[in-house]
Amino acid sequence: MAKIELKDLTKRADNYSQWYNDLVIKADLAEQSAVRGCMVIKPYGYAIWEKMQRELDDRFKETGHINAYFPLLIPKSFLSREADHVEGFAKECAVVTHHRLKNSPDGKGVIVDPEARLEEELIIRPTSETIIWNTYKNWITSYRDLPILCNQWANVMRWEMRTRMFLRTAEFLWQEGHTAHATREEAVAEAEKMLHVYGDFAEKCMAVPVVKGVKTANERFAGAIDTYTIEAMMQDGKALQSGTSHFLGQNFAKAFDVKFINQNNEQEYVWATSWGVSTRLMGALIMTHSDDNGLVLPPKLAPIQVVIIPIYKNEEQLNSINTIVEPMLTKLKSLGISVKYDNADNKRPGFKFADYELKGVPVRLVLGARDIENRTIEVMRRDTLEKHSASLDNIEEYVANLLEEIQDNIYTKALNHRKDMTYIVDTWEDFKEKIEQGGFILAHWDGTTETELKIKEETKATIRCIPLDGDKTPGKCIYTGKPSAQRVIFARNY
Amino acid sequence: MAKIELKDLTKRADNYSQWYNDLVIKADLAEQSAVRGCMVIKPYGYAIWEKMQRELDDRFKETGHINAYFPLLIPKSFLSREADHVEGFAKECAVVTHHRLKNSPDGKGVIVDPEARLEEELIIRPTSETIIWNTYKNWITSYRDLPILCNQWANVMRWEMRTRMFLRTAEFLWQEGHTAHATREEAVAEAEKMLHVYGDFAEKCMAVPVVKGVKTANERFAGAIDTYTIEAMMQDGKALQSGTSHFLGQNFAKAFDVKFINQNNEQEYVWATSWGVSTRLMGALIMTHSDDNGLVLPPKLAPIQVVIIPIYKNEEQLNSINTIVEPMLTKLKSLGISVKYDNADNKRPGFKFADYELKGVPVRLVLGARDIENRTIEVMRRDTLEKHSASLDNIEEYVANLLEEIQDNIYTKALNHRKDMTYIVDTWEDFKEKIEQGGFILAHWDGTTETELKIKEETKATIRCIPLDGDKTPGKCIYTGKPSAQRVIFARNY
Repeated sequence: MAKIELKDLTKRADNYSQWYNDLVIKADLAEQSAVRGCMVIKPYGYAIWEKMQRELDDRFKETGHINAYFPLLIPKSFLSREADHVEGFAKECAVVTHHRLKNSPDGKGVIVDPEARLEEELIIRPTSETIIWNTYKNWITSYRDLPILCNQWANVMRWEMRTRMFLRTAEFLWQEGHTAHATREEAVAEAEKMLHVYGDFAEKCMAVPVVKGVKTANERFAGAIDTYTIEAMMQDGKALQSGTSHFLGQNFAKAFDVKFINQNNEQEYVWATSWGVSTRLMGALIMTHSDDNGLVLPPKLAPIQVVIIPIYKNEEQLNSINTIVEPMLTKLKSLGISVKYDNADNKRPGFKFADYELKGVPVRLVLGARDIENRTIEVMRRDTLEKHSASLDNIEEYVANLLEEIQDNIYTKALNHRKDMTYIVDTWEDFKEKIEQGGFILAHWDGTTETELKIKEETKATIRCIPLDGDKTPGKCIYTGKPSAQRVIFARNY
Repeated sequence: MAKIELKDLTKRADNYSQWYNDLVIKADLAEQSAVRGCMVIKPYGYAIWEKMQRELDDRFKETGHINAYFPLLIPKSFLSREADHVEGFAKECAVVTHHRLKNSPDGKGVIVDPEARLEEELIIRPTSETIIWNTYKNWITSYRDLPILCNQWANVMRWEMRTRMFLRTAEFLWQEGHTAHATREEAVAEAEKMLHVYGDFAEKCMAVPVVKGVKTANERFAGAIDTYTIEAMMQDGKALQSGTSHFLGQNFAKAFDVKFINQNNEQEYVWATSWGVSTRLMGALIMTHSDDNGLVLPPKLAPIQVVIIPIYKNEEQLNSINTIVEPMLTKLKSLGISVKYDNADNKRPGFKFADYELKGVPVRLVLGARDIENRTIEVMRRDTLEKHSASLDNIEEYVANLLEEIQDNIYTKALNHRKDMTYIVDTWEDFKEKIEQGGFILAHWDGTTETELKIKEETKATIRCIPLDGDKTPGKCIYTGKPSAQRVIFARNY
């Protein structure tokens, strides 16, 4: 619908950040809205997000979760109930103070009606732990009411000062799971399970390799005992936190007085987790795979997996191409492949080629009069931009296999890139040099927030996570020389 | 998860309104939240809404629409751009005035930071015409950019004074379609097409018969040229507006200066429609079919379509029942039927029976030791509460057919109820009498808002719609005796 701008994208090598911003706009994924920091997710971008949602939702349901919906607005006082939580979230949020407008006395538009001031201000949810635990209080009496395994798909708002489309916006879309358990062990197991669900989704669907780990105290979710994270590496070597799962202990149960009678007939506070991924994943998807020609989408999330473009000189040639393409479309669809036949007359093939490249369609098939004679078709795969000729016979199975190959290939490519840019570093000099080049640095750290903050101050590198399955050999802190239990991942990050 | 209250529901005959409120709570559909007028949609209620969403979304996509997402917040000034629109929506809405909280100087919680006042207040969307047409301005230059056929699934907020769960809540979930067209004819055709999509969904999926019609000027959407509606009749004879589709003319295009170059190379304002259905449909669904035992759900929207309950005296009997049920589950699932086998040990069969009745599960199968000997199974259908014995052979196909029969039956029952409570009325005395009894009154009206409002004042009846395929015979207004083009539908309404 929007005007397609086929003008050159900024090249990644010239300005990676500008390339990203250009691509979001030019590929019709999103645009800035009239409201500061809030984006419009355009149909093509939203179609990718819908595919992500469907895949995630299926995985949540397979692991026993159910969806529900909790209010958008949270009473201001709820935020203060959990001491760490309010520090993390109350500071920059949208506050509703009134419930009515009235005509301006000067006849120009409308003004806030001062008489419609709310008794207690309401906050647009930055995250829903507080309102949900206030609700769970009514749902839980005994161990028989547990576990509660709820998820909600919702919009949330955090009044960010510096915003970037998908990566950091004031309003964003996400899902937030909130579970309640009878024991610490069960809650910890749930938080870890969801970390693995996220990891599986990132690697299998998004083709984005991730490191699973635990956050340091300084990087933890406000109100959590432990925050688990999946961390991806972008092409520029910067880390992108792609999903988090929190073991909340009994913090929110205590804040909202949620107790249950356990099997020994004793009252106990309920154990909690929460976990979420957001439209930020779109940023990870874009920055992991795309190139100077535009988006590269993993076949599993591409709204259009295959585009077929006819090349013809006259109506007769188009007709004979149509005759070949019709049954192909049927067969491809029957294989569950989303295919578009673009025989629109008002755009030249070259324009179409560039457009579908920009949009990241994984496979392009081009069919001309000569192909029909030879029973062949030209196949272009978006990930490598390679073209070759294939037989028209069984082209559908050929394409189905090719889509799988592309899915695997872009994952492997991203994984190799991460390996190439992951460094084991043992000296502070080396650390400072490597961090400038980008990438993940595996280094020892003494476990203190003080050291972590000093390293951040000097190098802008943060500890992305303590990897779950990393090398557990102890060593000495890269900065202080004090004992370290294991290497952690340092990187600059989005 | 919640405690199941099997205590008697209020009977419909005793207090229909209380019966509805009780049922929403007891069937675990929703509950009030800590925020005035905002509900929590509980997992069982949300599962029904998800099924509705999926069915509607499929229909939108089949008719060429795509989803997108627009911001939650709307600049206050946008509302004033369209004169009628601001009258309709600016008056009761949630107003965001600040973007930060800070610690209270008295150390007790947080307060609004007066220094974080927004330059222009933002409104939580009560509907999104304004922000969307402000966006479409950037998307449309020429007739080639048209039509735009966008939909969004979103939460909206209207600060209602009196709220009832699902029927009228401050925050509610809905979808809103917003389309842009090159001609008046195309926009009118779109508004009518979506009315028929809604009607088809209501009748085929919800099993709720609806009258399709046009709203009078007084009942029109604020900013529309014409509002189309589907009107359903509840069991108490009151009408429930279940979906609306608006032909907006060029009103929003003019307000936001959205022009296009037409095929004759002339500048013209774009033509618009918008259309929406909301979680209010849940209210229509509940009130159309349910009874004094609880929910009655149409099979097409029931989260659980079939429940199987074993009756056994010992482990051995349970094991032999399990052996029969396992392949049944597989086969039912392969037929696309959602089935639950409830062999939980900690609840007695009688409790389970009442619970699944309350939850509206369409078919209950009960299997005992005697049944296994006889190769039979007890079948209970929720719509009629009739029980009978069926053969275990081919029980899956039998159940599949029964589900269809139930879907048809509850539709026919609702349709007959509407027919029985629809009256052709020709005198004012008769009108006043009939309206007290409830139901739809087909009567003549002189076409003026003045008369419409007087009738409303005297009888609380509103004109629900001017039916599209009603009798077009002219007559005389029931109230003023002035000429009338056709009968319209009067009713009291939710």
